Amino acid sequence: MKFSPLINELIESFRCLPGVGAKSAQRMAFALLQKNRSGALKLSAALHDAMEHVHHCQTCRNFTEQTECEICRDEQRRATGLLCIVENPQDVIAIEQSSEFKGCYFVLMGRLSPIDGIGPAEIGLPLLQQRLTEDDVKEAILATNFTMEGEATAFYITEMCKQLQLPVTRLAQGVPIGGELEQVDSNTLGRAFKTRSAI
Amino acid sequence: MKFSPLINELIESFRCLPGVGAKSAQRMAFALLQKNRSGALKLSAALHDAMEHVHHCQTCRNFTEQTECEICRDEQRRATGLLCIVENPQDVIAIEQSSEFKGCYFVLMGRLSPIDGIGPAEIGLPLLQQRLTEDDVKEAILATNFTMEGEATAFYITEMCKQLQLPVTRLAQGVPIGGELEQVDSNTLGRAFKTRSAI
Ligand SMILES: [Zn+2]
Ligand SMILES: [Zn+2]
Repeated sequence: MKFSPLINELIESFRCLPGVGAKSAQRMAFALLQKNRSGALKLSAALHDAMEHVHHCQTCRNFTEQTECEICRDEQRRATGLLCIVENPQDVIAIEQSSEFKGCYFVLMGRLSPIDGIGPAEIGLPLLQQRLTEDDVKEAILATNFTMEGEATAFYITEMCKQLQLPVTRLAQGVPIGGELEQVDSNTLGRAFKTRSAI
Repeated sequence: MKFSPLINELIESFRCLPGVGAKSAQRMAFALLQKNRSGALKLSAALHDAMEHVHHCQTCRNFTEQTECEICRDEQRRATGLLCIVENPQDVIAIEQSSEFKGCYFVLMGRLSPIDGIGPAEIGLPLLQQRLTEDDVKEAILATNFTMEGEATAFYITEMCKQLQLPVTRLAQGVPIGGELEQVDSNTLGRAFKTRSAI
């Protein structure tokens, strides 16, 4: 004997969420049934609406429900000529929160990973190439992660930019602000020595 | 700047799930948008259907989408005259998996907790009393948790049964099967001594 069909279906459906196993799927289903049916109905509608209407911005690949996202439609941002290339939408938010960058983005929605079958086409590099040839891009800023795959992706895009004779930069690496030397990993510390600057 | 409205709404809606904070809500939203839209649409439908159609069994209070749940409609189970009283639907599943019990259940959907405003009415004790006066119940088996609140709830129901002159039992406590003495907590061990049985 199991739960009733609709409850089983609900528990099973929760398993599509990352990090949700059998036990927490059960806990979620009963918490909503017992204490928060209106929240559950809101979640149901939000899931439906987002999956039906959110797609990729035709210019930067970021998620949006419009043809072109808010940032891409911002004339002031385009006028900077700066195009920051990131792996995913969360990176855009992180950079926006730093308030340092006022240009446009290109969101790869992943990174090169040949063993997972993720090649240039999967991360939108043909669209990026087209974007980089447009007049308004003056500098490509590589902000992929500083992981092995992120670095490989940055290297690939660097080659692309060089062929187009477009200036390309990479975010600086070093000791984080407020960071204590003894807590910084040795690779980061080594890099910070090599790229030290005059004061 | 934040995500687009539909994505914000989705992230916010995930917060209704127990144990889901801002970061994991974000992770869930993007995982579904990027990799599993069909799973998300299934979850949306499952949530809607469960919240709309799952209610309490009129006889035992367990969740069901029918007027009376499968177990309550089982004539063989009712014929045993055994009514097992548990705190929640997951307890029913746990007991069913032990394959020891073939009677009926009454699901309190909680436990007495006066400081949280959960009194007899909130855990369906009026309905339980009515059920206990029915001819077919011959023994009430208290299977609430062995926590302070579970014990208080069991005590309250015991009094109710005694007034109705109905035999009432409580699940045995003791050392778990396969349990090593040195790993059993001292309260459990003390109880096991007091209630030791002749072999
Ligand atoms: Zn865009
Ligand atoms: Zn029932």
